[in-house]
Formats: sequence, structure tokens, C-alpha cells
Amino acid sequence: MNEEKDMADARAILAGYRASIDNIDAALIHMLAERFRCTKAVGVLKAEHGLPPADPAREQQQIARLRQLANDAHLDPDFAEKFLNFVIREVIRHHEQIAAANGVTKTG
Amino acid sequence: MNEEKDMADARAILAGYRASIDNIDAALIHMLAERFRCTKAVGVLKAEHGLPPADPAREQQQIARLRQLANDAHLDPDFAEKFLNFVIREVIRHHEQIAAANGVTKTG
Repeated sequence: MNEEKDMADARAILAGYRASIDNIDAALIHMLAERFRCTKAVGVLKAEHGLPPADPAREQQQIARLRQLANDAHLDPDFAEKFLNFVIREVIRHHEQIAAANGVTKTG
Repeated sequence: MNEEKDMADARAILAGYRASIDNIDAALIHMLAERFRCTKAVGVLKAEHGLPPADPAREQQQIARLRQLANDAHLDPDFAEKFLNFVIREVIRHHEQIAAANGVTKTG
């Protein structure tokens, strides 16, 4: 009986964590949606003004900053860097679509 | 001269978008740090109670929910699903570490 109660308690605690995870995921999705709104606007701006799609110096600054933020928040900095690269790959895909739609060739 | 002003304006607008992106990235890193705090606690709970590390039914619910949230926020639902899978891969890595530290064998 104690074992059954123990398991029921564990399942209740698990349900609580899952409610938190679901709330956090909704926040993450909405922050990502807003981030892509910004980067799509950046893509249009760059395409309109012939600015190069990639900016390696900016990316290096972003990586260093996110690694520091991750470290301070006890998140694995390597994971933070992988996450940023994952997002940037999607951004580049969007920018190539925008540039193609504007008839701009890649300037590297 | 107009062209120079036009380019200076474009760079000022770009700097504004980048300030927004940097704020959003800080929010994302902190939400991810909190999400992993929750999933690590879930990993400990599951290891202590011999609950299976993976829960395919829960994962299917999470994917369907995030795809819907993404759709409502005008974010590509395929990207949202890829993002969840990217995060879950890291969660599984943590859970395996926790289970190994607790001397629990994988129950699948």
C-alpha cells in the first residue's frame, strides 16, 4: 500500500513538472515566432539594400554572449551554441527565400 | 548623398532589430535553462521510482500541441516539431546520465 501511495505521489509530482514544461514550451514557441518576425524583417532590409546576408563578426558576438548567458543560468554553453546554430540555419533558409523572391543573388 | 543617408537609415533599422533579437535570445536561453531544470527533476523522479525514461504518448501530445501553437503564432509547424525533437534529444542525454548515476538500467 505504501508503495502504491509512493507511486501515486510520484505521478502527481510528475504531472506538476509537465504542466511547467508545457507552459515553458508555449513561451519558447512564441519567443521563437517573434525572433523569426525580426529576422525576416532583417532579411527584407538586407535584400532591399544589397547588404550581405551573413555577418560572421555579429555571429561570433552572439555565440560568445549566449555562452556567457547560458553559463550564468546553469545551462550547458555547448548546448546554447548548438541551439543558436540550429536557429541560424533556419534564418539563413528564410533569407535565401527572401533574396530569391527579390531576385537578388547571394553576395556571400 | 541620398544613397549614403538611405544606407545609414538601413543600418540604424538593422541595429534596432538586432537589439530585439538579442533580448529575445536572452529570454530563450533563460526559458531553456528553466525547462532543463524541470526535465532534470523529472529524470531524478523517474530514476528513483523506476518509471520508464521515455513516454511516447506524452511526446505525441507535445508535438501536436506545439504544432498548433506554432501555427497560431505564424511559426512554421515543421520547425516547431524539429525544435522540440532537438530539445528532447538533449533531455534524453541528461536522463541517461541521471539513470547511470543512480545505477538504473534502461527499461525502454
